[in-house]
Amino acid sequence: MSHTRLYRHGVLEAEGFPVADVSDHVSDPACAIWFDLCAPSPADLAVISEELGLHKLAIEDVLHDRQRPKLDVYDSHLFLTVYGEQFDSGTGQLTSTEINVFITRNALVTVRENDRFDIQEVIRRWDASRDLAKHGVSFLLHGLLDVVVDGHFEIIQALDDQIEALEGELFDEQPSRELQRHTFALRKSLVQFRRGVLPMREVINSLMRRDLHVVEAAMAPYYQDVYDHVLRVAEWTDSLRDLVSNIRETHLSQQGYRLNAIMKKLTSWAAIIAVPTMITGFYGQNVPYPGSEQPIGFWTSAIVIVTASVGLYVAFRKRDWL
Amino acid sequence: MSHTRLYRHGVLEAEGFPVADVSDHVSDPACAIWFDLCAPSPADLAVISEELGLHKLAIEDVLHDRQRPKLDVYDSHLFLTVYGEQFDSGTGQLTSTEINVFITRNALVTVRENDRFDIQEVIRRWDASRDLAKHGVSFLLHGLLDVVVDGHFEIIQALDDQIEALEGELFDEQPSRELQRHTFALRKSLVQFRRGVLPMREVINSLMRRDLHVVEAAMAPYYQDVYDHVLRVAEWTDSLRDLVSNIRETHLSQQGYRLNAIMKKLTSWAAIIAVPTMITGFYGQNVPYPGSEQPIGFWTSAIVIVTASVGLYVAFRKRDWL
Amino acid sequence: MSHTRLYRHGVLEAEGFPVADVSDHVSDPACAIWFDLCAPSPADLAVISEELGLHKLAIEDVLHDRQRPKLDVYDSHLFLTVYGEQFDSGTGQLTSTEINVFITRNALVTVRENDRFDIQEVIRRWDASRDLAKHGVSFLLHGLLDVVVDGHFEIIQALDDQIEALEGELFDEQPSRELQRHTFALRKSLVQFRRGVLPMREVINSLMRRDLHVVEAAMAPYYQDVYDHVLRVAEWTDSLRDLVSNIRETHLSQQGYRLNAIMKKLTSWAAIIAVPTMITGFYGQNVPYPGSEQPIGFWTSAIVIVTASVGLYVAFRKRDWL
Amino acid sequence: MSHTRLYRHGVLEAEGFPVADVSDHVSDPACAIWFDLCAPSPADLAVISEELGLHKLAIEDVLHDRQRPKLDVYDSHLFLTVYGEQFDSGTGQLTSTEINVFITRNALVTVRENDRFDIQEVIRRWDASRDLAKHGVSFLLHGLLDVVVDGHFEIIQALDDQIEALEGELFDEQPSRELQRHTFALRKSLVQFRRGVLPMREVINSLMRRDLHVVEAAMAPYYQDVYDHVLRVAEWTDSLRDLVSNIRETHLSQQGYRLNAIMKKLTSWAAIIAVPTMITGFYGQNVPYPGSEQPIGFWTSAIVIVTASVGLYVAFRKRDWL
Amino acid sequence: MSHTRLYRHGVLEAEGFPVADVSDHVSDPACAIWFDLCAPSPADLAVISEELGLHKLAIEDVLHDRQRPKLDVYDSHLFLTVYGEQFDSGTGQLTSTEINVFITRNALVTVRENDRFDIQEVIRRWDASRDLAKHGVSFLLHGLLDVVVDGHFEIIQALDDQIEALEGELFDEQPSRELQRHTFALRKSLVQFRRGVLPMREVINSLMRRDLHVVEAAMAPYYQDVYDHVLRVAEWTDSLRDLVSNIRETHLSQQGYRLNAIMKKLTSWAAIIAVPTMITGFYGQNVPYPGSEQPIGFWTSAIVIVTASVGLYVAFRKRDWL
Repeated sequence: MSHTRLYRHGVLEAEGFPVADVSDHVSDPACAIWFDLCAPSPADLAVISEELGLHKLAIEDVLHDRQRPKLDVYDSHLFLTVYGEQFDSGTGQLTSTEINVFITRNALVTVRENDRFDIQEVIRRWDASRDLAKHGVSFLLHGLLDVVVDGHFEIIQALDDQIEALEGELFDEQPSRELQRHTFALRKSLVQFRRGVLPMREVINSLMRRDLHVVEAAMAPYYQDVYDHVLRVAEWTDSLRDLVSNIRETHLSQQGYRLNAIMKKLTSWAAIIAVPTMITGFYGQNVPYPGSEQPIGFWTSAIVIVTASVGLYVAFRKRDWL
Repeated sequence: MSHTRLYRHGVLEAEGFPVADVSDHVSDPACAIWFDLCAPSPADLAVISEELGLHKLAIEDVLHDRQRPKLDVYDSHLFLTVYGEQFDSGTGQLTSTEINVFITRNALVTVRENDRFDIQEVIRRWDASRDLAKHGVSFLLHGLLDVVVDGHFEIIQALDDQIEALEGELFDEQPSRELQRHTFALRKSLVQFRRGVLPMREVINSLMRRDLHVVEAAMAPYYQDVYDHVLRVAEWTDSLRDLVSNIRETHLSQQGYRLNAIMKKLTSWAAIIAVPTMITGFYGQNVPYPGSEQPIGFWTSAIVIVTASVGLYVAFRKRDWL
Repeated sequence: MSHTRLYRHGVLEAEGFPVADVSDHVSDPACAIWFDLCAPSPADLAVISEELGLHKLAIEDVLHDRQRPKLDVYDSHLFLTVYGEQFDSGTGQLTSTEINVFITRNALVTVRENDRFDIQEVIRRWDASRDLAKHGVSFLLHGLLDVVVDGHFEIIQALDDQIEALEGELFDEQPSRELQRHTFALRKSLVQFRRGVLPMREVINSLMRRDLHVVEAAMAPYYQDVYDHVLRVAEWTDSLRDLVSNIRETHLSQQGYRLNAIMKKLTSWAAIIAVPTMITGFYGQNVPYPGSEQPIGFWTSAIVIVTASVGLYVAFRKRDWL
Repeated sequence: MSHTRLYRHGVLEAEGFPVADVSDHVSDPACAIWFDLCAPSPADLAVISEELGLHKLAIEDVLHDRQRPKLDVYDSHLFLTVYGEQFDSGTGQLTSTEINVFITRNALVTVRENDRFDIQEVIRRWDASRDLAKHGVSFLLHGLLDVVVDGHFEIIQALDDQIEALEGELFDEQPSRELQRHTFALRKSLVQFRRGVLPMREVINSLMRRDLHVVEAAMAPYYQDVYDHVLRVAEWTDSLRDLVSNIRETHLSQQGYRLNAIMKKLTSWAAIIAVPTMITGFYGQNVPYPGSEQPIGFWTSAIVIVTASVGLYVAFRKRDWL
Repeated sequence: MSHTRLYRHGVLEAEGFPVADVSDHVSDPACAIWFDLCAPSPADLAVISEELGLHKLAIEDVLHDRQRPKLDVYDSHLFLTVYGEQFDSGTGQLTSTEINVFITRNALVTVRENDRFDIQEVIRRWDASRDLAKHGVSFLLHGLLDVVVDGHFEIIQALDDQIEALEGELFDEQPSRELQRHTFALRKSLVQFRRGVLPMREVINSLMRRDLHVVEAAMAPYYQDVYDHVLRVAEWTDSLRDLVSNIRETHLSQQGYRLNAIMKKLTSWAAIIAVPTMITGFYGQNVPYPGSEQPIGFWTSAIVIVTASVGLYVAFRKRDWL
């Protein structure tokens, strides 16, 4: 299903009309048009491309998915690729949805790879700030970017929460293997997320360049605001990397600690069991040792065993090995 | 509770008056006005915003907390976000208080998220350097930034002290699990602190740019001084990261050392116990071995056991395994 | 075998003619000529060099293989070195093929080290976009670079797949030594790949510089497209480094986990076996202990043994050591 | 004790005169004056400040110690902070001495935190190159910086020697705990040293900027020389970090090696002792096994024990476990 | 022994004449003179310095060895320091030879610290490209730099070969301690090599700057060629660091793997020996257990022992612990 909208002089005039009806308005500078295509066929793209005079290369890029936000400048239009991100807290898996955007002087075309990105939220945001609609494409594009970047914020918040949860597990007495799996999945998601988010800084920055004439002066603070958010997401991502390293390295150091603790216990108990065994071995010899076959032998043996065991136990306790 | 101050020609004329009284002076270039709002409601902000003509986006930013110092430039005013930091040495926890600042030509509005940041200290500092008060907003802003950055210095000093304390524990004979917890908490606080402090360099640097006309020429050295402090905090933070790594890695290496020492002890004692056990086993066989059922058997056994045990003990001692 | 092509006014006029025939067209601005030499002898190069007036140093560089993409600017021509990469998924080995390119105003000479790089693919791509052929050398060079960079994409995709496969192995119950070998080989290939790919950014960027007059205006978007791909490959390579680190470090942490698990099992079973041994030792002494030589002794012994063993087993189970 | 010197037209005219006598010459462009204050009281500083018209902020900075080389530019003078470093090879401890320098057109004021920095060496160096004295303050400042930076060179040399010594210990058969302590102390000193040395690059570079008019043209090569030294110290410091990492990581890897060696020995000897114990256990059963109570039993037992022990010993030797 | 050469109008006119004869030609712009001094005394340097008017500071730098390539610009001449490197594959040791170069308008003076750097190779290279000799000092300097940088290439190739050799050892069944020593030595050599090689980029780049007038236009591609080589050496050095890390970390991970394997074997065999010991202990009790003193006892015992041992062996095999 495709969405369409037509603004004239900042007022929403039509909505949901077929793409073909667009040709009348596309050259009217008072209009701002938006089309949205979801998982379009090459044929669909060809229609749009024809209508708006889009560059062959940009169309090709829509059909290939190569995972990096970018802004390409063509003579008659811009071509923007951004990524909407979704995070599944259960599995720790991150999925990206490519959104390709064609920006002409008075049209914005969004091409979504699939319907995982919530385009309704973009529409809601446009409707919430109707007073800015007079800024045309500049306004439409801002609404889209705002939703995308806010989405990134939500992800980074979710990742941060997961890290908090891992921290909770970290000092549990019982080391769980799950901790490793979670840390692994989290780091992987962070790497993926960085790839989709870091180049956004450059993309938004380029968009704001005067000579592209995309951003109208009155919209500049709004784009600056988006840019600030992008910067924060980037910095936060870096912080999370540090925090995950912190968890991972502390975990390693805890394993070392636990190993040492286990080894000390093992040594201690081994000694406490081995010493009586040695003594009974002595009293089990078939030679006439002092006390052999006599009650005094039993009492000596019993006393030595008990004394040695208790002595060792106390000694180990004192050294905190038990 | 909100604070207000009115300076005219560098002299404190009024204090503690209601925000509404401000409108008379807000357009008088001889005046410098300061309001402080602590955890204001949206309504409070709306009043101020109206009075001073603040941008909608800046007001929205006050209401969202997104943890990154920044400076936004709007047509009629600047919007600054900085963070006051508090550190609890006991728990090793760092808490940040967002301070939003609106800077117009002759008014400074500070909006604190909560009352953890000590605004009285700012007032004291203003009163301590009355001679600079004639520089208006430029003077007021300096006082605020000076207190914020001095606060960062105190935190970094406290973190440094904690690291010194960790170093003390590091070479203790008894490895304590607390060392891991402390190192973990410290690293986490450092990551958080960096996030609130590093962008300050850029923020202060931007403030000092000539074309913003915020900093009057005579105040320039004072801002330079704040900037120097910010640089030192940033460099010191990086040093602390290195020092914490040093502790962490030395700790790991110590665990390895201890494990080796334990293993050597374990091996040695195991041998010293197992050899006599083996010998008594021999003398416990129900076969006519030389000396079985005869005193000579007992003496041979006893001598072999003692010789072997002492010999092993001496040998291990020499190799420094015991 | 060498390939040749002659375009006049953007139309393919001749193909497969001998290199010597070229001199007639080499100074005709309406022509665009391509020669391809595979593993040429110094004599072959001397002929070409004479024909096109190539610099001695560039010719020398063809004969030495020093593994770094670069662009050298000479007065009358450019000298470009790029690398075609092949990856063998089985052995995890990466092999590079050096491709040297001389670029004059209307001739492109490609010199391949060996025939591992698929030059037919370049020809296919040229034929697929005949409409651009009028842009001469600029068009020819684009076709070549496009194939080279697409090759890099395939490699990085293959490396990514290998990493996915490693991840699968990572949480297998049975730690396999192969995981280490694979991780090792993969990291090595990544280092090698980076060396051949990262300088490509600079090379393509230099090619696009206006003052070199290599790229005709109409071809600019196509070179921009190649440049974007190069950037993505570079960023993706960095992501893969991170992912491999993730695997490597998780693997290390798993070894620690397994070691701890083994040690706990060892300790537990050692105790469960050692305690009955100690008891039977007691009942094997040749002294009149209570119950010696009497059925009650057997029963006591048996009950103590079973009780102790079962008790220990249950205790260890509870603490999750078994 | 304070030092003073007065040069007129490049000739040393007076020395050791009281600070108060200075006012006569301070405005004479033919003079170059030097004062040195060691650990001055605020009152002492006030006198100097008055005399030379120094900025309040610079004076405050003298009284606070915040550990970072820097250069502040005031209208009438410069304020420079550098650090003299001392290294105690015994304890591995590094101590820094802050040296504050005020630079006016014809006066140089050095303020030392304490007398650990050898000011006599600076005087010696001035006297050794009298021919340059005509360059006034530019000459005086160079002498000071030269001594400071040469001091840094000595420290880095001393640190390098310590690293060499550590390397010697590294492959000792007997792992010493001291190695850890030394590595720890060395890394800590390196971190501290970096903090005092790295910003020197920027400081010297700023001093050499034309528009400050500090460095006379004829002195430029001398400052360039100091700058080169600073660069080398910085690079050397980074190399040392790498070398210390090398030691630390090799040490860790050696611990792993030793642990494996110990474990193999432990396993081998445990087996060699446990097998005979098992055999004697068999022959100690109170059941009529073949050879029980008969000489043949003893001989069988003895032969089996010796064969098993020797066989195991030989087998372990072959596999290099013993 | 010192070398000298005199070129006039690009033709070698004299060779091996005494340094003192030089004064006649030193001001003749048609001449290009080369002197070489090996380990000169301060007196030797004074002569040269007088003759050519060299700066005192540059002369001092010759006498101090501070290990960093650099280019100093003086009014009448340039002063260049580069390092010739030698690598001993046997010991893995790297030794550097400082080469100081004075460059005036028509003289090149090379001062070698010792005779380890092969100056004959430089002479050979000059003689091999006589046609360029007309470019005077520019030509002479290129010959020298070319030999120095080619030397670096050989070292990096040798280091690369050593790394290949280490890789071979890495997956050997028998972990050898030598691997650690080699890795350690290799990393140390790499650190040292970097220090001598990385600043070369900046040095060569500065030499090529137009305003120094060192490099004649016709020689520019030759210097560019040297510069490319320097860049490749630098990048290769970085790759080698990565490869050594790869080896080091894989080695660590292998130690962990081996430790786990040893522990599992230890556990398995300990169990297989301990269980029969426990059973014979049972049958060695001096109590009337079922079968005591009867053949049935022996058979039961024998069967239980064999069954338990074989059962355990099979079980451990299945779990791949043996």
